[in-house]
Amino acid sequence: MHAYRSHNCAELSAANAGETVRLSGWVHRVRDHGGVLFVDLRDHYGMTQVLADSDSPAFAAMEKLRAETVIRVDGRVKLRDPSLVNPKLPTGEIEVYATDLEVLGPADELPLPVFGEQDYPEETRLAYRFLDLRRETLHNNIMLRSKVVRSLRNRMWDQGFTEFQTPIITASSPEGARDFLVPSRLHPGKFYALPQAPQQFKQLIMVAGFDKYFQIAPCFRDEDPRADRSPTDFYQLDVEMSFVEQDDVFAAIQPVIRGLFEEFGGGRPVNADWPRIPYAEALRKYGSDKPDLRNPIEMQDVSEHFRGSGFAIFANLLEQDGTEIRAIPAPTGGSRKFADRMNAYAQKEGLPGMGYIFWRKGDDGTTEAAGPIAKNIGPERTEAIRQQLGLAEGDAAFFLGGKPESFEAVAGRARNEIGRELGLIEENQFKFAWIVDFPMYEKDDEGKIDFSHNPFSMPQGGMEALSGDPLKVLGYQYDLACNGYELISGAIRNHKPEIMFKAFELAGYPAAEVEKRFGGMVKAFRYGAPPHGGCAAGIDRIVMLLADEQNIREVIMFPMNQRAEDLMMGAPSEPNNEQLRELRLRVLPKD
Amino acid sequence: MHAYRSHNCAELSAANAGETVRLSGWVHRVRDHGGVLFVDLRDHYGMTQVLADSDSPAFAAMEKLRAETVIRVDGRVKLRDPSLVNPKLPTGEIEVYATDLEVLGPADELPLPVFGEQDYPEETRLAYRFLDLRRETLHNNIMLRSKVVRSLRNRMWDQGFTEFQTPIITASSPEGARDFLVPSRLHPGKFYALPQAPQQFKQLIMVAGFDKYFQIAPCFRDEDPRADRSPTDFYQLDVEMSFVEQDDVFAAIQPVIRGLFEEFGGGRPVNADWPRIPYAEALRKYGSDKPDLRNPIEMQDVSEHFRGSGFAIFANLLEQDGTEIRAIPAPTGGSRKFADRMNAYAQKEGLPGMGYIFWRKGDDGTTEAAGPIAKNIGPERTEAIRQQLGLAEGDAAFFLGGKPESFEAVAGRARNEIGRELGLIEENQFKFAWIVDFPMYEKDDEGKIDFSHNPFSMPQGGMEALSGDPLKVLGYQYDLACNGYELISGAIRNHKPEIMFKAFELAGYPAAEVEKRFGGMVKAFRYGAPPHGGCAAGIDRIVMLLADEQNIREVIMFPMNQRAEDLMMGAPSEPNNEQLRELRLRVLPKD
Repeated sequence: MHAYRSHNCAELSAANAGETVRLSGWVHRVRDHGGVLFVDLRDHYGMTQVLADSDSPAFAAMEKLRAETVIRVDGRVKLRDPSLVNPKLPTGEIEVYATDLEVLGPADELPLPVFGEQDYPEETRLAYRFLDLRRETLHNNIMLRSKVVRSLRNRMWDQGFTEFQTPIITASSPEGARDFLVPSRLHPGKFYALPQAPQQFKQLIMVAGFDKYFQIAPCFRDEDPRADRSPTDFYQLDVEMSFVEQDDVFAAIQPVIRGLFEEFGGGRPVNADWPRIPYAEALRKYGSDKPDLRNPIEMQDVSEHFRGSGFAIFANLLEQDGTEIRAIPAPTGGSRKFADRMNAYAQKEGLPGMGYIFWRKGDDGTTEAAGPIAKNIGPERTEAIRQQLGLAEGDAAFFLGGKPESFEAVAGRARNEIGRELGLIEENQFKFAWIVDFPMYEKDDEGKIDFSHNPFSMPQGGMEALSGDPLKVLGYQYDLACNGYELISGAIRNHKPEIMFKAFELAGYPAAEVEKRFGGMVKAFRYGAPPHGGCAAGIDRIVMLLADEQNIREVIMFPMNQRAEDLMMGAPSEPNNEQLRELRLRVLPKD
Repeated sequence: MHAYRSHNCAELSAANAGETVRLSGWVHRVRDHGGVLFVDLRDHYGMTQVLADSDSPAFAAMEKLRAETVIRVDGRVKLRDPSLVNPKLPTGEIEVYATDLEVLGPADELPLPVFGEQDYPEETRLAYRFLDLRRETLHNNIMLRSKVVRSLRNRMWDQGFTEFQTPIITASSPEGARDFLVPSRLHPGKFYALPQAPQQFKQLIMVAGFDKYFQIAPCFRDEDPRADRSPTDFYQLDVEMSFVEQDDVFAAIQPVIRGLFEEFGGGRPVNADWPRIPYAEALRKYGSDKPDLRNPIEMQDVSEHFRGSGFAIFANLLEQDGTEIRAIPAPTGGSRKFADRMNAYAQKEGLPGMGYIFWRKGDDGTTEAAGPIAKNIGPERTEAIRQQLGLAEGDAAFFLGGKPESFEAVAGRARNEIGRELGLIEENQFKFAWIVDFPMYEKDDEGKIDFSHNPFSMPQGGMEALSGDPLKVLGYQYDLACNGYELISGAIRNHKPEIMFKAFELAGYPAAEVEKRFGGMVKAFRYGAPPHGGCAAGIDRIVMLLADEQNIREVIMFPMNQRAEDLMMGAPSEPNNEQLRELRLRVLPKD
């Protein structure tokens, strides 16, 4: 017989009754039922009930077992009494009467219990991650992640893509975040960088003549702590294709992502047709470029109803260029209590408040519009607004005004809040949409033109478009949104050096700077570059959605804490002098 | 029609004759056949012949094409004249008469030609890797690598393993090589390290209760330059299993590797039964722990024939403790010319020379033994040697003497050389063998006991064995050798803290040092560790064997040069002051 097991802990059934077996695993729980000891023996595959009475030679050893000890048990498979069958357990029909027991790996008193999965402080969970990972929920999340990655890989191969690994120790490639640097010992004073993304490499792969690339790629960014992201690294499904337009990328990726969510979404439906929503429309309707389309609320421009109206704040606002009044319809939100709560929400978000109208049954039995705005603009305009928004008695509408960029983000959050509060969100499903036509440029806080997203995107209209107003230039740039999250970001790339230099020039980067920062790629574009494009999908985010988790550390095997420390392995740590000497580095004292 | 292509460059055949098609790709070669221009148009998939005569509207544009320009061509598919059909090309029955041509990506004068694949200095190839990668051989190698990795993954899943990614930014984990360090910005003065291997993490995964782990894992070592390895990083198939003994690991891995070599070996046979050769036997017979078993030569101990013989050098040598005379039989090597050449080889390798006997037809027609040794030891001993080695007329034998550790490595190389010179090596096949029973310890140059291989291995005989002579302790540690290369290395791990501390103590590491270096893992072993073991296979080496390449850079997409520089991306490079300031580092001047 094998030294450790004849079966795993999920394998035995009634068919094995009477057999002599050997199992190994962790002591999940010990129960003493008056002279009979029961051990739930757990391994990666499942759980088997093992028992011993005082007649068993294993009894004495079993009495001393502590939780999470690793043991080997020999015994006989017995049918359970029909009243004791556990239908929820694959092995629930049987138990194993122990005849021999050996401790393979003793366990000290546990700093973190496995059985029961009680809530424990995250720092303890991370310091004892090897115990935390034995807990069922986390164990299952990590298995899910692995299966998701495998499925993604297979689906990409099935779509004709090939996976290539790109360098991890490489050159600095500034993409908006900070690089992690790696000092070179052979070239003291010089540093490598860990890639923020394989952006340049994947474009080089296209220039090198490979047609359809993907990679489950580690990406490294030295980020300031934030609850919902890893402070050091993350994984993305990185994709690039040659000789394609935007539609080709969508056609390649959509079945991959849709199939994945159908496979691992636990039966939650996935919308079949993914709308393509221009960026500007997404902001207008949803106040976000990653709208949650499970929320049916669509905002509308209602400026016309307020222009020259008796509601002076909005009427005056509209005198200024570029301003607008936008309504957030709130079906079933027609009560003063709800309206006040949302107004308070807006104040908490830093706005002076949110005007509202709500429609209720009046004393005369007909529908009446209530709230200060209705009073100020009068019944005709109020009714026109109701009709435009398609609302009825029992509903409400909220209003925000000003330059759209000043209120759109808050409006989007208010839309979420309203949808949630009113129970309008169609839970338990996935609603995807492509967001397209992102602007190439935006004004930064100092009024300077800068790239709004990826500087490597091809501007729509090419060179010609770049001679006009930069703020009006759209890029062949797109995102995939799902349930309020951005899952994918991508673009058709700018493969023409002259357009690239012009695009960077508009953002204030002289040619020499471009050559310095992206020299490898720019050089390559001079020797026969194909049109190409692609995208990158966030693996951590996808797994979080599928596992229905809110914290990224619940879907990563060995995550850093939020201070970018590995509490289990003790990283980062002080180097020794020899290491610093070899790198010719000195650590400076604090100020 | 699609903006870039209706078909790829490998797709058209006689069945498409008469169709109007659109192709895009690189101009592989332009030929001018007196008024008719031929372009070999190349993409990732293949090659299609495009032509234009002066009647074609595309003619003028085609005349100006430079090699490696990316173009789009519209045209009509024509059958080639039967005499011009190229059966070696999938598209060899047709050509495309161009009616329209657009340059999508112009090409400057090439620093490295693609067509023809002429030899070019490696530095140029690396600086223009995107051109180098368009060459057929390298392109195919990289595709092979990707397919090999995919196949490995699928084969591992099929064996019940699950892939998990382990951290890349982590703690220093000293395993014999230098770490790459990563300075922490959030914790200035502290450093992360890139993992030399996921050794501790994979063991923690076992302690965390996952049963069968694998990973195509990037490993980082700050190595001094050497021709046959990457100076920064490499990939390994990393494997670990719980509740296993050595045989279980072999049973899981052998079908994976064998299947892989059968799938990608180009028909080269793979031996079905992989012998298990104890380390000591491998050194004795082959002078190497990674023997090339395609070479039939097996060395033998022939000390008895020299003890007290007339060949004083050997006879005297044998008076010393621990010495031995070993013979390398050389079938068909029976000529003075060959014997002298091998003697010269040994001198080149730093030995005083290699004694020899060779057997030839004597003047009287019978077999006679020639060479100084035969004269000195006389016909009886010479004949006994011949019989022991199973040699005959026309054969030779070479002799080395001393303490085995002083000559075994040279003897192994001489065995290779003799096998090669005499054409004894059975080329075009893969011969695998497991090398088992590695010693746990060895004496270093200063006579100190140290681990000879992996310190985490379980000593055979456990705690008891560690109380005796450390140099006699064998580990449950094994390698897989193939054709003279080590492809895999692995072990059953030491999962018992008390045995681990004892094992380290013997090698001179006090308990505090073990806790400091491997604290995460040692801590984990106190809370229920299962018996476990595994191995790691070198991906680069496997692909090199399959692709029949000698240089690791021929099987890596974007390799560093031997000075650990990326000539294309310009890494490593000088950091800016802001980066150093944030990390609180200063680069010290040279000396």
